[in-house]
Parts: sequence; structure tokens; C-alpha cells
Amino acid sequence: MTTPALQLPEAGEAFETAEIERRELRSTDVRIEIAYAGICGTDLHYGHNDFGRTPFPLTPGHEIAGTVAEVGSEVTDFRVGDRVGQGCICNSCGECVYCEQGEEQFCARGMVMTYGSKDYDGTITKGGYSASIVVDQRFVLRIPDGISLDDAAPLLCAGITMYSPLRHWKVGAGSKVAIVGMGGLGHMGVKLASAMGAQVAVISHSHSKEADARRFGATDFRATGDEGTLDDLQGTFDLIISTVSKGLDLDQILPLLAVNGTLVSAGLPDGPANFSVFTLMTGRRSYAGTNIGGIKETQEMLDFCAAQDVRPETEIVEAAPEAVASAWGRVGDGSARYRVVIDTAALTS
Amino acid sequence: MTTPALQLPEAGEAFETAEIERRELRSTDVRIEIAYAGICGTDLHYGHNDFGRTPFPLTPGHEIAGTVAEVGSEVTDFRVGDRVGQGCICNSCGECVYCEQGEEQFCARGMVMTYGSKDYDGTITKGGYSASIVVDQRFVLRIPDGISLDDAAPLLCAGITMYSPLRHWKVGAGSKVAIVGMGGLGHMGVKLASAMGAQVAVISHSHSKEADARRFGATDFRATGDEGTLDDLQGTFDLIISTVSKGLDLDQILPLLAVNGTLVSAGLPDGPANFSVFTLMTGRRSYAGTNIGGIKETQEMLDFCAAQDVRPETEIVEAAPEAVASAWGRVGDGSARYRVVIDTAALTS
Repeated sequence: MTTPALQLPEAGEAFETAEIERRELRSTDVRIEIAYAGICGTDLHYGHNDFGRTPFPLTPGHEIAGTVAEVGSEVTDFRVGDRVGQGCICNSCGECVYCEQGEEQFCARGMVMTYGSKDYDGTITKGGYSASIVVDQRFVLRIPDGISLDDAAPLLCAGITMYSPLRHWKVGAGSKVAIVGMGGLGHMGVKLASAMGAQVAVISHSHSKEADARRFGATDFRATGDEGTLDDLQGTFDLIISTVSKGLDLDQILPLLAVNGTLVSAGLPDGPANFSVFTLMTGRRSYAGTNIGGIKETQEMLDFCAAQDVRPETEIVEAAPEAVASAWGRVGDGSARYRVVIDTAALTS
Repeated sequence: MTTPALQLPEAGEAFETAEIERRELRSTDVRIEIAYAGICGTDLHYGHNDFGRTPFPLTPGHEIAGTVAEVGSEVTDFRVGDRVGQGCICNSCGECVYCEQGEEQFCARGMVMTYGSKDYDGTITKGGYSASIVVDQRFVLRIPDGISLDDAAPLLCAGITMYSPLRHWKVGAGSKVAIVGMGGLGHMGVKLASAMGAQVAVISHSHSKEADARRFGATDFRATGDEGTLDDLQGTFDLIISTVSKGLDLDQILPLLAVNGTLVSAGLPDGPANFSVFTLMTGRRSYAGTNIGGIKETQEMLDFCAAQDVRPETEIVEAAPEAVASAWGRVGDGSARYRVVIDTAALTS
């Protein structure tokens, strides 16, 4: 069977509308009628073939929210009409120690990503810029009643990518957290860390987002364009999460960590890390990476957002080639405020 | 008052014997009659003025073992004749959160190091290549009965530098640990991690130390000179401690970490770290630093070594300029097996 979708025929070409294949439902599969799909920075990396391994034609999208349209014969967890989501992961071995712990992102066989990946059966996965998707129930999230589908979508990558390190590094009341870069990921980081009780500072290039940052819960904001602005923050933070991919000066950021503090990279830098190890040694500091989160933790994050009234800031665009291309431009140049979400209605009308 | 010592008049000059100043005992001070002082790689860095801030003339030495010769009027913890030691730290503020936690190495005011540092009263500290030293009782370690003074000395820097990260990163039965480089620090890492119940691998340049490594408790040994020798170790280790300062290829070492694993730098690399952050992100791996250990933990380490029969491998040299210069040569070129300890008897005879 097929479903309407947006696709990029090749890197550098324009989006086009197409009918793409979806598999027939297996016994444990769910078919989701997609209402909204968020635009993630990773979509742009894949679309531009930045990693040199994108299988074209590409239908991106791993922030998917909608309703259950059909279930396989053995599906026990979901019923037609349920409000559900799908994030970055669509398959994993289910048997390794990481899958058993609910950390499918570290699956020993290698998780399969929702788009642009080869699934275990050899098919190439296609994502959420489309009218429907078929996925095993293990990877389906339940969207809490209080969260609208357009708000739910960005939580499924941006939300969990920030929530998981905040939890892993035990952020709570009184923690001192800094978020470097306040785009799609960063703005969720500010809101989530604040909701967890942390004192949150934002480190940005300029002051353009300062008012927003304070509205999202930040109590401090520094623009690296102001010389010396970080001087009084040396040795301050328990956790710093960097969401920037370009021009991160680690020798400027690492000294801001308190003793035992950790800098976590949530955005893939555009080149190798380069810094003086002396800063790590003198304060037993760490530089770590994080990679989305598992299904169990993603559900926990959705429930946390519902309970704590945490929502992304979104702009909605229609699922038309020009509108999405224009939105990619705003995501790419940092002018999106803060996550663009595609309303897929135009694909089905 | 003065005490006989070895000193370097300037970087690049030869050791000479000299009388150096020691302060009159304050009420909480202990005077230690030094029996042995270990030679640490840091001594060479300071002696060569590698950091550009060595105050000459320099008397190095921060692995000091001896007996109490005199105590101040308010000293309660030690008596004349007690077998004691002094490590890298000789002063700290005593009031900050780190000092209160017994982690004086992170003192907010800045710990004072046993040699080559400016003490809070403005005097320049002079180390253990000497006949006696005066230090506040807070920084004096008790050497357990079972440990000889010559064996105790290297534990006070090399021992604690390895023990502290092994404890901090919770190494225990079944942990998979790799030690990169097996010199003074590394050989203690192998013995300590084995005594804690870990499975220990050594990663070295060549096979020259393999038999020793296995005798110290390692169950695996890889020489990076053998092409492809690390291939089957990808994703293996919970903790890797690097003790090397030259030519560490982080892109070769970091992928050996398991998910959630940590690479700890215990040896200061000779240049900035440079590596792909992708490896950190895909497995939530960390690159961290460590810096000796606090006084409380140093005492715990000494007691652990006594109970577990962990001892350094030492060569003893006499406290004469030529003998120590020659020992520095062997420490510098890696031919020492594995820690050289100075017998200070020649200074007092």
C-alpha cells in the first residue's frame, strides 16, 4: 500500500509530492494517521547528505503525532482512534541488554531510525512528512490527553533529546544548568530543566532571544558576543548541555563547569572536539555525549510535560513543497521560533 | 631551621645538595623525618619547567614516607615515632565545601602543593627529596603496619591517583577496566583495579611489559604496535584510565568504551585533546579528568593496600645528585620498573 508524502529526489533538489510505500500491517504493527510532523535539524543534515549516506529519495520526519488508524491482530497496547506518536526509533533487536533496559537507542544490533535507515528486513525507512506510517507497537508512544498533537510532535525528538541527559545527570531542585544555543533543542532544554527545579542559564551568540529565554524559565542569559561575559560564571554549572553544531569553543565552555560537572553534547559538532584536558583534570570534569532516549523514557517525558505543563513553541506550516522548503530555510538559519511543525492535512485533501 | 635536601638551581642544571629552610613548628604541625621519597613524572615536568612556572631553586618530591620526629603543642592525631606519609597536598582552606567533604584537591581557595607552590603565607613549598619536612597534621597520612616505608611512598601520589578514579567511577567485581600505559601510575592501576575485582586489560605500545602486567593482575594485554589488535575490544570497557602523556590517539581509544563508559585522563597529555564527538554521542560515553585524591581517600587507599596486599614495584636509589639524575632519566624514558624511590639516608649521614 502507499501513502502521500513529501520527498527529496536527491540532495540539493526541491521537495516533491509522491506516493511512498508502507508495508502491510504485521500482527504487532500499528498504522498511524499522521496529523503533524516536526522539522528537526537532523532532517536538514540528511536532506543535504551531510553524512554522505542518505538513501534518496528521502522522506524525512521523526517527530510524528497522529491517531491510530489500524492495528495488527496481536496489538494489545493500542486501539483505533488512540492519540499516539512515533519518534526517532522504529526498530531494535528487542533482546540485548540495552533493549531490555528500555534504552533501544543503544541496541547492540543497532537501532533502526525512522527515516533514511535500512530496516532489518532490508527496506529503507521513510519518515513522517507523509499522511501515514506503519510501525511496531513497541515504538509507539501514547500522547497524554492534555497535549495537543501539534505540541506533541516536537517532544518526540527535541523533547526527549534534552529530557534524557537532564535525567541521566540527575538534574533536580537547585541544580545549576546552562543551555548553550536556544533553538529547537535548546528551548526545550530551558523549559524542561526549569520544570525540574533547576536554575537555568542560557548561553547564546546575541541577546535576540533573551526575553524568550526568561519567559521559558531561564534566570540568567549571556551573549558570547559581549566580551568577558562568562568570567563570573567560571566553576558554576553542574550540567551544561550544548545544542550547537557550529563554532563551539570548548576551552571557553568547559571552565564554566563546577567540580564534577559535565558538559553534554546534544548537537553534533561540525568538526572534531579540541580542548585542553587540564580543565577536565583540575575539576574532575567530564565531556559527554547523549543520543535521544529510549521508548520508556520518551513516554515518561511526555507524561512529565503533561503534568508540568511543558510545551514547545511552534510555528505550523502546511505540507506543501514550497512551505516546507521555506521552513527548512528558517530552521537552517536559526530564525525559526522555535520548532516548525508540518500540518499534514494538505497531503490527504 | 634548615634540613639537607637535593635541589635544582635552575631548569636544565644538575642536582646539588643544599640546606633548605623548614618553618618552625606551629601548634598543629608535624615534623616528619623522611625515610623515602618517590620520583613522580610530575617532578620531571617541574624540574624541566614544562609549565613555565617552576620557582627555582626546586626541591621536588610529593611521595614522602617517614616517621614523626616532633609535634606541635596542639597535635592530637600523631605522636613522635609514628610511621607517616605526606602526598601532593600540604595546605588547603579547610572551610570550603570541598575541604569539608575531604576533597582538598578541589579546594575553592586552591590547594597548596607539597613543592613548587606558594603557600598561603607566601613561602614557596619544598618537597620530599630532603631529610625532613614540616606539615600541618591535616595533611599527614598514617602508614599501616603491614606496609614498609619504601613501599608506602609511591602510594601517596601514584597510588591515590589511580585509586581515586577507580572508586569515583565505581569499579568493582566484574567491572571491565583498561589501563593505557603501564609506568609508575599504570602499574598501580592494574594492581588496584584487580584487587577491586575488575577484569583488567593493559594497552601499551609494545609487548615488553606483558609478563609483568599479567603478574600484576591483568587478564588481557594489547600492544598498539600490532595492527588491528584493538578491533575486537570495541564497546568493551566500563572505565579506561589513560596514564600516558604523549601520543594518545583518542579516536582509537574512545570506541573501546561500552555504552555509558568513561575514559579518564590521569596523565596530562602534552597537547589539546582532539577527537570525534560522534563516539561520545552514540554510546553516551564520557571523557573525564582526575586529579590525585583527598586526604581521607588517600588514607582509605593506604588501608585498602594493606588489607589487599597491594604494593608498588620499586627500585631504590640513594639521595645523591648523580643517582637521582640517572633515575630521572629512567623515569623519563619509561625504562624504570616501575617506581623509583629515593632513600634519603645519604642526606643525613
